[in-house]
Amino acid sequence: MAEKFKDACGVFGIYGHPEAAKITYLGLHALQHRGQESSGIVTSDQERLYVEIGMGLVADVFSGEVLRRLPGDMAIGHNRYSTTGASHIKNAQPFVAEYMRGGLAIAHNGNLVNATSLRAELEENGSIFRSTNDTEVIAHLIAVSHRKPFLDRVVEALTRVRGAYSLLLMTEKELIAARDPYGFRPLCLGALGEAHVVASETCALDLIEASHVRDVEPGEILIINGEGVTSMKPFKPVFPHQCIFEFVYFARPDSTIFGENVYLVRQALGRQLAREAPVDADIVVPVPDSGVPAAMGFSKQSGIPFELGLIRNHYVGRTFIEPQQSIRHFGVKIKLNTVRRLVEGKRVIVIDDSIVRGTTSRKIVSMIRGAGAREVHMRISSPPTTHPCYYGIDTPTRRELIAASRSCEEIRRYLEVDSLQYLSLDGLISAVEEATHGRYCSACFTGRYPVTFPEMEVPQELELPFR
Amino acid sequence: MAEKFKDACGVFGIYGHPEAAKITYLGLHALQHRGQESSGIVTSDQERLYVEIGMGLVADVFSGEVLRRLPGDMAIGHNRYSTTGASHIKNAQPFVAEYMRGGLAIAHNGNLVNATSLRAELEENGSIFRSTNDTEVIAHLIAVSHRKPFLDRVVEALTRVRGAYSLLLMTEKELIAARDPYGFRPLCLGALGEAHVVASETCALDLIEASHVRDVEPGEILIINGEGVTSMKPFKPVFPHQCIFEFVYFARPDSTIFGENVYLVRQALGRQLAREAPVDADIVVPVPDSGVPAAMGFSKQSGIPFELGLIRNHYVGRTFIEPQQSIRHFGVKIKLNTVRRLVEGKRVIVIDDSIVRGTTSRKIVSMIRGAGAREVHMRISSPPTTHPCYYGIDTPTRRELIAASRSCEEIRRYLEVDSLQYLSLDGLISAVEEATHGRYCSACFTGRYPVTFPEMEVPQELELPFR
Amino acid sequence: MAEKFKDACGVFGIYGHPEAAKITYLGLHALQHRGQESSGIVTSDQERLYVEIGMGLVADVFSGEVLRRLPGDMAIGHNRYSTTGASHIKNAQPFVAEYMRGGLAIAHNGNLVNATSLRAELEENGSIFRSTNDTEVIAHLIAVSHRKPFLDRVVEALTRVRGAYSLLLMTEKELIAARDPYGFRPLCLGALGEAHVVASETCALDLIEASHVRDVEPGEILIINGEGVTSMKPFKPVFPHQCIFEFVYFARPDSTIFGENVYLVRQALGRQLAREAPVDADIVVPVPDSGVPAAMGFSKQSGIPFELGLIRNHYVGRTFIEPQQSIRHFGVKIKLNTVRRLVEGKRVIVIDDSIVRGTTSRKIVSMIRGAGAREVHMRISSPPTTHPCYYGIDTPTRRELIAASRSCEEIRRYLEVDSLQYLSLDGLISAVEEATHGRYCSACFTGRYPVTFPEMEVPQELELPFR
Amino acid sequence: MAEKFKDACGVFGIYGHPEAAKITYLGLHALQHRGQESSGIVTSDQERLYVEIGMGLVADVFSGEVLRRLPGDMAIGHNRYSTTGASHIKNAQPFVAEYMRGGLAIAHNGNLVNATSLRAELEENGSIFRSTNDTEVIAHLIAVSHRKPFLDRVVEALTRVRGAYSLLLMTEKELIAARDPYGFRPLCLGALGEAHVVASETCALDLIEASHVRDVEPGEILIINGEGVTSMKPFKPVFPHQCIFEFVYFARPDSTIFGENVYLVRQALGRQLAREAPVDADIVVPVPDSGVPAAMGFSKQSGIPFELGLIRNHYVGRTFIEPQQSIRHFGVKIKLNTVRRLVEGKRVIVIDDSIVRGTTSRKIVSMIRGAGAREVHMRISSPPTTHPCYYGIDTPTRRELIAASRSCEEIRRYLEVDSLQYLSLDGLISAVEEATHGRYCSACFTGRYPVTFPEMEVPQELELPFR
Repeated sequence: MAEKFKDACGVFGIYGHPEAAKITYLGLHALQHRGQESSGIVTSDQERLYVEIGMGLVADVFSGEVLRRLPGDMAIGHNRYSTTGASHIKNAQPFVAEYMRGGLAIAHNGNLVNATSLRAELEENGSIFRSTNDTEVIAHLIAVSHRKPFLDRVVEALTRVRGAYSLLLMTEKELIAARDPYGFRPLCLGALGEAHVVASETCALDLIEASHVRDVEPGEILIINGEGVTSMKPFKPVFPHQCIFEFVYFARPDSTIFGENVYLVRQALGRQLAREAPVDADIVVPVPDSGVPAAMGFSKQSGIPFELGLIRNHYVGRTFIEPQQSIRHFGVKIKLNTVRRLVEGKRVIVIDDSIVRGTTSRKIVSMIRGAGAREVHMRISSPPTTHPCYYGIDTPTRRELIAASRSCEEIRRYLEVDSLQYLSLDGLISAVEEATHGRYCSACFTGRYPVTFPEMEVPQELELPFR
Repeated sequence: MAEKFKDACGVFGIYGHPEAAKITYLGLHALQHRGQESSGIVTSDQERLYVEIGMGLVADVFSGEVLRRLPGDMAIGHNRYSTTGASHIKNAQPFVAEYMRGGLAIAHNGNLVNATSLRAELEENGSIFRSTNDTEVIAHLIAVSHRKPFLDRVVEALTRVRGAYSLLLMTEKELIAARDPYGFRPLCLGALGEAHVVASETCALDLIEASHVRDVEPGEILIINGEGVTSMKPFKPVFPHQCIFEFVYFARPDSTIFGENVYLVRQALGRQLAREAPVDADIVVPVPDSGVPAAMGFSKQSGIPFELGLIRNHYVGRTFIEPQQSIRHFGVKIKLNTVRRLVEGKRVIVIDDSIVRGTTSRKIVSMIRGAGAREVHMRISSPPTTHPCYYGIDTPTRRELIAASRSCEEIRRYLEVDSLQYLSLDGLISAVEEATHGRYCSACFTGRYPVTFPEMEVPQELELPFR
Repeated sequence: MAEKFKDACGVFGIYGHPEAAKITYLGLHALQHRGQESSGIVTSDQERLYVEIGMGLVADVFSGEVLRRLPGDMAIGHNRYSTTGASHIKNAQPFVAEYMRGGLAIAHNGNLVNATSLRAELEENGSIFRSTNDTEVIAHLIAVSHRKPFLDRVVEALTRVRGAYSLLLMTEKELIAARDPYGFRPLCLGALGEAHVVASETCALDLIEASHVRDVEPGEILIINGEGVTSMKPFKPVFPHQCIFEFVYFARPDSTIFGENVYLVRQALGRQLAREAPVDADIVVPVPDSGVPAAMGFSKQSGIPFELGLIRNHYVGRTFIEPQQSIRHFGVKIKLNTVRRLVEGKRVIVIDDSIVRGTTSRKIVSMIRGAGAREVHMRISSPPTTHPCYYGIDTPTRRELIAASRSCEEIRRYLEVDSLQYLSLDGLISAVEEATHGRYCSACFTGRYPVTFPEMEVPQELELPFR
Repeated sequence: MAEKFKDACGVFGIYGHPEAAKITYLGLHALQHRGQESSGIVTSDQERLYVEIGMGLVADVFSGEVLRRLPGDMAIGHNRYSTTGASHIKNAQPFVAEYMRGGLAIAHNGNLVNATSLRAELEENGSIFRSTNDTEVIAHLIAVSHRKPFLDRVVEALTRVRGAYSLLLMTEKELIAARDPYGFRPLCLGALGEAHVVASETCALDLIEASHVRDVEPGEILIINGEGVTSMKPFKPVFPHQCIFEFVYFARPDSTIFGENVYLVRQALGRQLAREAPVDADIVVPVPDSGVPAAMGFSKQSGIPFELGLIRNHYVGRTFIEPQQSIRHFGVKIKLNTVRRLVEGKRVIVIDDSIVRGTTSRKIVSMIRGAGAREVHMRISSPPTTHPCYYGIDTPTRRELIAASRSCEEIRRYLEVDSLQYLSLDGLISAVEEATHGRYCSACFTGRYPVTFPEMEVPQELELPFR
């Protein structure tokens, strides 16, 4: 269910197109699932930067009038994920500033693990910060670099930062795309006629009818300007650790990331799950929308019929007012309803991509039982989520992750299902690696974080005994 | 695709609940698919009526503050469909007026065929009209009735009108539900503790956790007041003609209408379609969301794999600005994308519920071919839509309905598909009647209109030679 | 002070101008002081009526986009006064309806005293009402008239109603202006090139550069259509009773109404007040803005210097949030401040146009004393307001009118002023009649209501013993 | 007329009040005339800063809900003036940033003349800027200071800047108020119970019922914290040059600034004007609202009656749509109207405080003539405005200032008045200095700028031959 995790933003950039702002707005629309809190576009007409950023969905922030205020043939844009509290316009992106060499705009998908140390060092030397955003650290590092060409400044800055970034930087004259050496977040390169495009996912290329040229590689920097696209790899090479959770949940099913289509990988996970955790039942029902491909895979492998036993109300999108005489599982009911005639008297296998806190899953199970299911079996197309992500995904803390402190049997009892099984880690990794020939970060399932934390910045929750 | 037709509104009413307004607001949310233009709720605290009506979705019109302005333990609500032009707050419902006996509110799903004649007659006698809505005619007929009890006035008024109505009427003291003798539109009765509920579809009962008591029958009037629910059938009995298109497209799949679950009926239509119109192909792909159940049925019957080859962007909902350097099939692309890896090199069967103008279907086909499909076969889970509906569905005129003037082969060429087949009328009717033991109106496929038009009001397009 | 009374709306109409809607919007802006609650314009292009009505100020309701939706070369518009509670879009004007002969729009300034009886009679015959507005009664009377020409219907309808009306009626083809036989509310006729204009006050003619032709006379009906302006006087003649309070407070000082400029009349009232109620003091200070001309007259007559000792903050216009640690006289302070250096140690004469509840006056006095005034004398440029108006001004009830139950000396003690004097009734009437040669209604000062109430509709407060 | 100049912002701060945000919001409301573009408040609860800034009037930006998001017992606030184009939320104040020592908020009224040089130097050392605001320069200077205590950093920063500033700085723990050595802009200190208040003008103290303790002196810095108010004067003393134009036009008439009440000074200017430039005429008419006190002074001195011959429509506040068939002097007419009966056949003296471009004055004169005035004489209560202000007032460029290149006679012909006279510089200065015993900047009338410009930053228009 899309409500469970908050993703780590979507980025889009284009160079050399007369309608750069409009194309970016469409690209951001295609990437809307990666962030719904705020949306921003910065353009350049080679002379100066133009900025429009607002809270809300792309289509709400950018009217025709707003887009007309964004001239120029290059642009970068950003969708930010939604959180409560720290959500504020000052943290919305792209981050834009003036420094010695002129204007600078940055759109960042990812998360730095040494931002606090770097910020302290920068502040010590007189830098002032306006946001709580780690992106601003990158801007300051570029500004205080003593190198002259912009590219050298960027390289020096990125050499200092550690963590995850799929990054777009723009000056009045050029566009730079960079992906951290581990390649946590996706970033792809496309072509639209003579224009060059970069985007978090290929679904953004499809909408604007750009072709998918290739992915930006882990550790690669692309310089896009009047002379075309130049590639460099200035960082010490490491084994890539792309985010396996993009396949499990985040990316859009029609996108191709890390070399494979997301929908097909999810079906493969469902098939593997059916092999690992078979169960005798009447129907396979996905939790929409994210559980659908895995459920189809499970059904095909097991031969048990696939049925849309949960129907989603697509008009959701804001807080609903609940009667005082409370409705059971209100939060889930406002979004989902069971097809009673379908599940009545049946043994139902419910397929979801993951379980975070378990509260939503518990409500869904209860709702299905309320509709008359005889048995409810839950199958999850990924291993237990035991650890938070520090590379750009807004997961809950360990304390909130049910699998961080509970055994599978304990979770089963909490969910009140007849059986519960997760996909094995080996099953997940082998299925994904087989499809993509890539290497992956699976820290959220294992706690093995490929980029370690500076001494002062180890998250407290990782040090304390838990439970 | 939800954009093709505009439905004929959703109605909801409740009697005897301390949070009548809040429950109605939730019921309307569950019925949001039946109308997105405007939303209104009228409540009564036994003394007077309270009204709140606004343009937009239920969740936009009704904030906590607005709901607090709606006291009382009875309420009716209405969602109106969206059209351009005539869309105006003055036409939003419920219709509310003061007449001799006090306040009167009406929420109407359906369409009267003799409204123009009745209106002329009423105006002749001095009635003044504020809207272009046929619902207002009913209100005036009640007001000018010389009978005394409210119920008698309602019966007299409804005896005068011809056409389709699933109707809720409310005074300060009671709630009346009425369904026309033909029973074109659905209307069901539910119970929520001591409270009585009426709604267009059962999915509204599910959200509020009301039980489904039974349907309001064609030609039945229910009087709901302090003495409970009283039924009467004051009209001359006729053969019911329930709207078969509710099953094909309009109703939500999790609803049970006319005695059967919509999702199951749609799967049955898909199976019947596979029997009638088989084709050798690799995958079955639905046009989401309305084509999904039929596609699943087609797949199950034919054994050809079901795949979600078209992915819907759920963040759609308003006008998008298109670049001048136009994107092919922009309107479809902003909502749908193909899963390229899935359709590449494949023979694809595309399943949709119906074809109206053909323009959207043509774009979808072209998009699938652009993604590399080797063959594209289209199968439609209903017969050719040749005639407009005059009983409450906002279909295009005959001139716009592609099947009104083109043969199947002509349409196939226009859509540029390798083959095209519709479900037969017999196949449709037998599948639905078998499931529901009901009788149906299929005028949109046949032109046989069960309620005829007054001499002066025969739609011009039905009289003229066409094409 | 403008907050004390709520006026009875402003009306504006134009016939024969290619930009009828825009001119009407400007006319309504000039009449904004007569109503700030809602604003509406109806135009006709000879074929049909176009309507735009909204809550708020003219400039908020009518954007360029909204004005573009109002084609045609004739228009009427209306500003409605602001009240709490009953304020609702359904009561906003112009009132628009369809009846037998076509469209009908009415903009009404005034109040009918027999609306309730007429409404009951109309409802008895089957009319239904949408508003609580007496204007709707006029529309129904026109609709049920058995006469044929529109003008005859209007005359028949107006013969039935009693009370105050300065009225604009519009059909697709013509514009009718009518003023009740007593002429309570102002209404003037202007010319703008070939176009004919009617407006509540001449300040609306000034803004659009129309010339002031003459006033519409009490009891006169003007028919404006392709053949020009035709006048008729179908009612039984009575002595006019124009509203003297328009001079005292309501009308804009730059307007000429009832034959004389408002600003000059107010100065004359101030002069008369100085003659009747002299006092030995240092400065004359008006309560802005309405007390200014009278204070200038008082100063000129008495020779005591006029000073703006109270300064108004013009950025007021909505609710302000008060600290819990409350500010004394917050409501007045947010709008007015004293010029301390000016009043310190002085004997101050405060001039206001009238006293309603006395609460605001009391706060102003206290604020002036707090700024160090040695003595505060209050002089009011009208007699004690003892009776509500039933002819179109939204005055408080008798119970709220301080002068209805308190003697001058009691009010003086309540206001905590050293002396208090009102202008005498004779002084007021003679000053106004001398300037204008007109006849006036002064019921709010005397309780002598020129149009009596139907037996069933005598306001309860007039019958009961008071205090 | 308030439209002529755009002022240089209003600032307000409070320390030690449990409702700091609400009091600041009221203070800003009283200072609304100093800036209508944007409004912002920053509070501190001793732990962290809370920020709310928005475009628009104080009452529009701050609802009860927004104020609840501003806890703490200290606050600073800022109103910004309105300009077109560069007007943007990023330039709205207070400026807030994080630096090494924590949070920092700055509200600034004034303008620095060496901001560009300082910014270049700061950028050279790696500072990045987010706004085009000179206030940000002060924040960076504080951040890069190598001193330790905050106060020392502030002093070091202010020692570097040149120009005009009445400044409020806030950290989590203390509030600092500073006024530049020349004292261009006003700044006063008040007391509200135990709380300390600073504000641009005393009218803000009046509204919140604070007492006026004294002015912050030129070159003085006040440190307000738990230990009370500490004063220091760390700058090299210079002769103060307070802005004489605050008396002529900007400040509110009920404020006391630079030691005297503004209303009384304006009356004195009017009296001096009558002595210097008498004319035989019938009435004295002010251009409202700013010309009113001077006109009263002129009238008293000359004995010619004061009359409000121009009436202002107070419902102005946004763009109005003009008919294509244009109205003469539309921009003025929408705001002002003449009282025709008052000026008809009269010899009119029009009093205004200043003439900027002359276009508005010309329209007013034409409007008065159109109303029938026999003669129109214009008298201005300040000398010709020949030079732009670089100390915090947004005056037009020299090229736009009519008096920069035209003689008095040329201007008279342009305005089409029978005579035109300005107040003499000597008359202005002696009247003001006599009242206040202060020293003033009159650069806008003389071009003698007390703070000179750095070599690189001399405004181009001052160097070029003009006309």
